[in-house]
Amino acid sequence: MNPYEYQEAHRADFLEELKEWLRIPSISTLSAHKDDVRRAAEWLRDHFLRIGMTRAEVFPTRGHPIVYAEWLGAPGAPTVLIYGHYDVQPADDAGNQWLSDPFEPVVRDGNLYARGATDDKGQTFTQIKAVQSLLATGNMPVNVKFVIEGEEESGSTNMYPFVEEHAGLLAADVVVVSDTQILTLDRPSIVIGLRGIVYMEIEVRGPRQALHSGVYGGIVHNPAQALAEILAALHDRDGRVTVPGFYDDVLELSPAERAALAQVPFTLERLQRDTGVSVPWGEPGYELHERLGIRPTLEINGLVSGWTGEGGKTVLPDTALAKVSCRLVPRQDPHTIYRLVADHVAALTPPTVRSETRLLHAGNWVVAEADSPYVQAAARAYEFGFGAAPVYTRDGGSIPVLGALQRVLGTPVVLMGFGLPDDNLHAPNEKYSLECFYRGMKTAARFYQELRR
Amino acid sequence: MNPYEYQEAHRADFLEELKEWLRIPSISTLSAHKDDVRRAAEWLRDHFLRIGMTRAEVFPTRGHPIVYAEWLGAPGAPTVLIYGHYDVQPADDAGNQWLSDPFEPVVRDGNLYARGATDDKGQTFTQIKAVQSLLATGNMPVNVKFVIEGEEESGSTNMYPFVEEHAGLLAADVVVVSDTQILTLDRPSIVIGLRGIVYMEIEVRGPRQALHSGVYGGIVHNPAQALAEILAALHDRDGRVTVPGFYDDVLELSPAERAALAQVPFTLERLQRDTGVSVPWGEPGYELHERLGIRPTLEINGLVSGWTGEGGKTVLPDTALAKVSCRLVPRQDPHTIYRLVADHVAALTPPTVRSETRLLHAGNWVVAEADSPYVQAAARAYEFGFGAAPVYTRDGGSIPVLGALQRVLGTPVVLMGFGLPDDNLHAPNEKYSLECFYRGMKTAARFYQELRR
Repeated sequence: MNPYEYQEAHRADFLEELKEWLRIPSISTLSAHKDDVRRAAEWLRDHFLRIGMTRAEVFPTRGHPIVYAEWLGAPGAPTVLIYGHYDVQPADDAGNQWLSDPFEPVVRDGNLYARGATDDKGQTFTQIKAVQSLLATGNMPVNVKFVIEGEEESGSTNMYPFVEEHAGLLAADVVVVSDTQILTLDRPSIVIGLRGIVYMEIEVRGPRQALHSGVYGGIVHNPAQALAEILAALHDRDGRVTVPGFYDDVLELSPAERAALAQVPFTLERLQRDTGVSVPWGEPGYELHERLGIRPTLEINGLVSGWTGEGGKTVLPDTALAKVSCRLVPRQDPHTIYRLVADHVAALTPPTVRSETRLLHAGNWVVAEADSPYVQAAARAYEFGFGAAPVYTRDGGSIPVLGALQRVLGTPVVLMGFGLPDDNLHAPNEKYSLECFYRGMKTAARFYQELRR
Repeated sequence: MNPYEYQEAHRADFLEELKEWLRIPSISTLSAHKDDVRRAAEWLRDHFLRIGMTRAEVFPTRGHPIVYAEWLGAPGAPTVLIYGHYDVQPADDAGNQWLSDPFEPVVRDGNLYARGATDDKGQTFTQIKAVQSLLATGNMPVNVKFVIEGEEESGSTNMYPFVEEHAGLLAADVVVVSDTQILTLDRPSIVIGLRGIVYMEIEVRGPRQALHSGVYGGIVHNPAQALAEILAALHDRDGRVTVPGFYDDVLELSPAERAALAQVPFTLERLQRDTGVSVPWGEPGYELHERLGIRPTLEINGLVSGWTGEGGKTVLPDTALAKVSCRLVPRQDPHTIYRLVADHVAALTPPTVRSETRLLHAGNWVVAEADSPYVQAAARAYEFGFGAAPVYTRDGGSIPVLGALQRVLGTPVVLMGFGLPDDNLHAPNEKYSLECFYRGMKTAARFYQELRR
């Protein structure tokens, strides 16, 4: 039996195993789920041992644990390090938008619905099953290591020092990550650029405690209003970020590079279909796919102040908080951008209130050169798995720790994503296409074979 | 025994009774407390019957009930209608600022701490005990009616039709309300103007559902940002409201009237002491006490959008909500102001998002002429109760239904407040000074005697 026949024969088993893992609500951002995160790590370690990895270990950290596994039975062959994460985003359902329980996976219309179905349990599992199909059929052509962390969705805080301290353990010829998306099932794509991120909290404080808005309204600067004024001033009318120096280090692409990217435009039709938004927004002078892939952004991820319950409470709040993140592109440094934003917020803060900008987490951008032999091997594997040659894209998302992994290990990176654009990442009704799961396994197994050609 | 001796003899009993009432968390805004609100109404009805009122009744409404009580044993004498409310503000304690349970009243340093201690259970109870002291000692010189509602903190929705439908039942010569404050214990004051209010919700909607900020950030207008832009545009840089027509109907006071108000300035020292704020804010061209008393305002009472939990979630929210209220002054109509704000928000909303401005509740301003015989009788009563002649002030707060009560019944109003400026209304650690309670009872009883002189 070859590995591809093995994959087809075990589809149903693989799906049940993935469901079992998805049922563990490993939400790294919420401390109430600390035990669930640990359980998901232990489940993964046990699973690695079951599929024939020769070593699998849960490394505790100051935060959530990191799972490491290896099979080094191909001396002289290249070594691949597969990075992924087993933690998931929160699945709060304030708007009652989830059609089924986010932690009770179900298949509907050929898609598996669950929090983490694609990001990143499902995609990581696709790699694991590809490795299993090679091991089980005696076809494993390369050495493999897995490092699967539990804090990707909350900034990879403890993964950074782990990478520094375990550079020898993690040493490899190439790092492979399945945590991105392809264009469509018929048009696969390989991401060659990922944005960096810096995530901040801006807090504005006013009076010592919340006040009666009738008794003090009109003489005390309302912190919710001061925050709105500050946030509104972070973009100009056209959608350009106004933070001084924000664009200074941005690498401008050549006309030829921009023309290459324009082969895969982000259409207005797709925006409307994916989001229901009919009028786009953003930085003038750049196409939609450029605003997503090669331009930095500043987004408000959350706002809270005063009375947010039903009905009305006539309170003048004592504090107002915004969660704000910037997506960064090549040459921008996350810590430099944090300082620029913090300085600008301080400059915008009037003497009637106080403000503080706190750094929550930061991660660098990643570039994977399209002409590297590894990306070329991946391209051939996609053609085998999906039946079409992939195009090259730049993705707007971020994998914070990947920049550090690339720098410390000195290896190239291949972003071998199997998600689809409508997978509802970080949103209600996250899903993973079963067809992506099956074609992804085929593609990943073929990639390891391509590395030995 | 005269009524004042009776009051002194029963202070401890009265305090225990008030504590019992305060223990019922009658929060009208939160539907989970519906039964508590009803219990507080029934407690009050039973209490009215116990102190000798000849009729006491709980009137159900579509929302929370209204309590009516009467004693009409002084034929030929004037009839006083006492309006108050037994519902209280929420006492959410996100910041852990309450020093004791808001619904377990305790006395510390001569103050009774509890939600509703002053607003308005405590002040209404002061009137009830004044009436009891007159009834119990056979000294009641006038007829009294009480109408105590359960929706003042949530807009008096059902009190308006009740007033219209029961104009005969409520008929009186003067309406008395104890729901305002005096300057200090040594410097009593009578409020001769209260602001009106219009309370709204502004909602901005963007994409169909929350999106991944890395995948769509930069091409979809973030509703939290659009809301910040709209809210920031509702004031100019100096703190003046920019809604077109907002100030059109505002009654400008004469220089003489402004000079009279200036006798009771709101000092910067008091602002600092009460709120911890060192730099005041607000409409230029007016003193602090004028901004609070005779000028309208627009305040943000709450903000919520996207991720507001701990840590970071990289979401592009689908919706953003602000709670906004305006305090209104003579000649401004609440419904006109609602339309002006709603139209301006609509005009400020870019085509990249949708917005809606919803009216939650509205109430008119109130004016009580200082030279009316009723206000003059109250002035003599304060001199008796507090040992000093009162000054006249305008208060920034609102009692939404009072304008309607005054219009339907055609009666003058006396605002006989016993609160203090640092009573923490609508805020953590609400309190009522026991000295205000005792002097207030004395003042109220004396006022009824003054009406028969």
